[in-house]
Amino acid sequence: MTDTAKEIDPARLEQMLRIAPFHAWLDLRIKSATADRIEIEMPWREEIISNPMIGSAHGGVLATLIDLTGLYALNAQGTQAKATADLRVDFHRPATSGPLIATGQVVKVGRQISVAETRVTGPDGKLLASGRGAYVCGG
Amino acid sequence: MTDTAKEIDPARLEQMLRIAPFHAWLDLRIKSATADRIEIEMPWREEIISNPMIGSAHGGVLATLIDLTGLYALNAQGTQAKATADLRVDFHRPATSGPLIATGQVVKVGRQISVAETRVTGPDGKLLASGRGAYVCGG
Amino acid sequence: MTDTAKEIDPARLEQMLRIAPFHAWLDLRIKSATADRIEIEMPWREEIISNPMIGSAHGGVLATLIDLTGLYALNAQGTQAKATADLRVDFHRPATSGPLIATGQVVKVGRQISVAETRVTGPDGKLLASGRGAYVCGG
Amino acid sequence: MTDTAKEIDPARLEQMLRIAPFHAWLDLRIKSATADRIEIEMPWREEIISNPMIGSAHGGVLATLIDLTGLYALNAQGTQAKATADLRVDFHRPATSGPLIATGQVVKVGRQISVAETRVTGPDGKLLASGRGAYVCGG
Repeated sequence: MTDTAKEIDPARLEQMLRIAPFHAWLDLRIKSATADRIEIEMPWREEIISNPMIGSAHGGVLATLIDLTGLYALNAQGTQAKATADLRVDFHRPATSGPLIATGQVVKVGRQISVAETRVTGPDGKLLASGRGAYVCGG
Repeated sequence: MTDTAKEIDPARLEQMLRIAPFHAWLDLRIKSATADRIEIEMPWREEIISNPMIGSAHGGVLATLIDLTGLYALNAQGTQAKATADLRVDFHRPATSGPLIATGQVVKVGRQISVAETRVTGPDGKLLASGRGAYVCGG
Repeated sequence: MTDTAKEIDPARLEQMLRIAPFHAWLDLRIKSATADRIEIEMPWREEIISNPMIGSAHGGVLATLIDLTGLYALNAQGTQAKATADLRVDFHRPATSGPLIATGQVVKVGRQISVAETRVTGPDGKLLASGRGAYVCGG
Repeated sequence: MTDTAKEIDPARLEQMLRIAPFHAWLDLRIKSATADRIEIEMPWREEIISNPMIGSAHGGVLATLIDLTGLYALNAQGTQAKATADLRVDFHRPATSGPLIATGQVVKVGRQISVAETRVTGPDGKLLASGRGAYVCGG
């Protein structure tokens, strides 16, 4: 990625995304990507369940989506985020079926730290979890 | 779990822990558990890798460990935490080999919200990630 | 406030707001309030400065604005938030003059925990800080 | 502060601390400072009250203490923290009298981001609030 690239095409972004074995295991796909907003889709799989009584996805899986979607929201607009410095997640409702859609947006691009936020919704469009990452840039 | 149970034996706690399919997939084990502190061990597996260049675990997997270990720290001392309200994680160093040890401690037991904190270390004992969950109790 | 009140008029909300001595000291005013969004205005005062070299407001003052504005965003739409459970703030740019405007929106109303987010901007409209509170409701 | 300074004497640290008008207004004092841990004391004052019914301090004031104490915990051990990138605070109990003591400890010194955590206690030693800041270093 060059510094002048201000957008990346979804197919190229998905290729980058799926280089990560954990992303491939989660079978993540880029649903849409613009400089303003990225949507990443995750199908359901039984291994991600936390509470088998209600069949709800593990909070850590939702946290994973929020972490990576924020980073790719930055990538999609040409900000090279190297790593997540910290992550904060609010859990709003149990996620009990898929696909889950994670929608990420950049809050602020900084010289050293950039911030992006992500909302995770279920098949019915209801908000399941949301949060933010602070990502290390530059340096 | 009854309200009067102030400690749970590790074998019983591990049985509860592994009812969650995601915990079983991560092959989590209770390494130690007292009312003061719980240690949960996670072996390495290739699917958790995020960056294949350096072979580092996904931040979401470390977030998963911090989420669940805090909840089990509460369970281990007899506080019935029903769900994670929110989670905050600081990533300190890449985790590049296992087993990872997550050590959880209760910060505050509240009537509605309890808080626990967890530190994740690698085989060399170095701190890789740390953070906190706020857990919904009672109600 | 009764349970059926779904909106509160700005003058009434400002009266409630300024019952708090710290809010009165900060000379906070309700700039606008609807069920969707609340704006609170804070004039500049020299005592809030942290770094006298650049004349920037203390991060804790911005955190204060984010904390209280989220709570009043909930109040403004009829959700009785009793206390802040936890607060998370990202600092984007130094705040060096006023008035500061804090704009709050509800993310999710829950039975036990509600979440609201707030953005603080300066006189030029630039984003200075943003963040979220999780507020204890009900119970 | 030179890079080789690994500790700063409390009187010098307090002088630095009180250069900030907001710290002077809060009448903060260094109670103790070592490379491992710093204690900052804040007397009570009526203007910091949020809820006049119970006479409790505003959460934003506790957040202020957590923000600055973490930064000074880093300073006290010779890590030059330039600014707070983000702050997270858990509120455990109302703070209804002073002095309040904020005890800060470094979690991790990083090349770009350092993390410190702080606990705020009241005159009876009970934990009132606790949290973490991520501070921008270097660069």
